Amino acid sequence: MDVIDRLARNLRRLRQLKGWSQEEFAFRAEIHRTYISDLERGARNPTITVVSRLATALQVPIGDLLD
Amino acid sequence: MDVIDRLARNLRRLRQLKGWSQEEFAFRAEIHRTYISDLERGARNPTITVVSRLATALQVPIGDLLD
Repeated sequence: MDVIDRLARNLRRLRQLKGWSQEEFAFRAEIHRTYISDLERGARNPTITVVSRLATALQVPIGDLLD
Repeated sequence: MDVIDRLARNLRRLRQLKGWSQEEFAFRAEIHRTYISDLERGARNPTITVVSRLATALQVPIGDLLD
């Protein structure tokens, strides 16, 4: 599984673990909701600063999203 | 320290631990040497697929480069 698919799977799993909708997650990470949806479908190749914001919102290390 | 600075510091440290020049590292990661130099100066905001290739070349988890 490549890093984009790992990110998609981990984002969805960790978001749902928090009980957040994509809208809630988008608001917390200060990222557009459609971009969250694209990320969770493996349709984006984000930069590390975007992934860092996602990890901060989820309160996990970046490695938990990418490894 | 933000994620771009953490990447810069970790890349340089892990590359030097391997005893590689930037040229050697660029060849192994299949990335242009000047891009490696830019990354180590914190002058780039790479995508996760680029960081994944860097981690593979260094044989470390991506979290070791970004956390």
